[in-house]
Amino acid sequence: MAEDAAREASFRAITTLKARYFRCMDTKDWAGLEAVFTADLVADFRDATPVHQPEMLIHGARPYLATLAPMLQQVVTVHHGHMPEITIEDADHATGIWAMEDWLWPGPESDLPFRQLHGWGHYHEHYRREGGDWKIAQIRLTRLHVETQ
Amino acid sequence: MAEDAAREASFRAITTLKARYFRCMDTKDWAGLEAVFTADLVADFRDATPVHQPEMLIHGARPYLATLAPMLQQVVTVHHGHMPEITIEDADHATGIWAMEDWLWPGPESDLPFRQLHGWGHYHEHYRREGGDWKIAQIRLTRLHVETQ
Amino acid sequence: MAEDAAREASFRAITTLKARYFRCMDTKDWAGLEAVFTADLVADFRDATPVHQPEMLIHGARPYLATLAPMLQQVVTVHHGHMPEITIEDADHATGIWAMEDWLWPGPESDLPFRQLHGWGHYHEHYRREGGDWKIAQIRLTRLHVETQ
Repeated sequence: MAEDAAREASFRAITTLKARYFRCMDTKDWAGLEAVFTADLVADFRDATPVHQPEMLIHGARPYLATLAPMLQQVVTVHHGHMPEITIEDADHATGIWAMEDWLWPGPESDLPFRQLHGWGHYHEHYRREGGDWKIAQIRLTRLHVETQ
Repeated sequence: MAEDAAREASFRAITTLKARYFRCMDTKDWAGLEAVFTADLVADFRDATPVHQPEMLIHGARPYLATLAPMLQQVVTVHHGHMPEITIEDADHATGIWAMEDWLWPGPESDLPFRQLHGWGHYHEHYRREGGDWKIAQIRLTRLHVETQ
Repeated sequence: MAEDAAREASFRAITTLKARYFRCMDTKDWAGLEAVFTADLVADFRDATPVHQPEMLIHGARPYLATLAPMLQQVVTVHHGHMPEITIEDADHATGIWAMEDWLWPGPESDLPFRQLHGWGHYHEHYRREGGDWKIAQIRLTRLHVETQ
């Protein structure tokens, strides 16, 4: 029973962590977003856009934010996550798959090469508990479909 | 342990309450929708549309429904909620933030000044337990983006 | 308390089951999709498209997959589920309503009579536990709105 309750608490903590990920991303709370990741984050967004981008495999939460924040600062974004499949591996490790949908509307000062991006896919993630708090340690995005205008 | 179970039960009850909110809204079950709110509901939808509407701050579940039901009766609507961040404050009070997306397709007899609205944003909510049932006591919608045609 | 924990475990198992339903559908893992259903599945998708299709009431997981897999093999699909209302009826039976949204993009070799379908609605489901595993025993899709191009 104690184990069941601990597992439920981990599920809840990881889903709330991912909710913070989305809200911080879309409200451009970059410090809040960095705080959902472990310092040694591995972020793999090489296939996020229709063109494969080798440089979008990034090691470290700080380097990832240093790339992401300037890229999105002039872009209205919406990222939604759905239907998690979370596996608790042990007290401090878990994995998850999330369905997702996103929209990007670059503003006039953005360098992004489209007026709108609308995408669908899955996040494949690893979580690690540090000092009692679950964090995202690895994140990789695969796509089902992407439309750009 | 008992406390953990009670918290989990509250999380579950609040997410199911919000699910009823969406289903009653989109199936036009106005009595069912009124029942998800406390009688003293504060509903703030002043920024739901591209034009700020001061009159869309409404006190009371009954007045809110009296405004909403005729406005949406001739409109096909879809409202989806995602990724809650729920905080249980005490046995009878909680708050929550939900990501959301909505579509409105006014029918030919609707007075709404668009053919379609597609919006994204967040609900910011307060919940209160009354007679054992969680209800929505405050709801406020903020927008990331709205498109109308 | 033991009962509460068992109920939470059932909620979690059913939501994860439905997540597998969506992921297997959209990644075309047909064996994985068949495994989320009871063998005696009743699948009612007669109103999934703008034209009522009497033949889309199918009895049996195998016959359903035998219809679905060839229909979708040449189609990029996204199906997202939201905001479940799940009722645990007893240790081995439950029901659920899910809000949903889907997109279909038929490829050049598909027979489907549209270039794109975008739909919204609700799944109405019955679940049954067999050998310890929750499965979908009945699924029916109702629509709020469907757009085809």
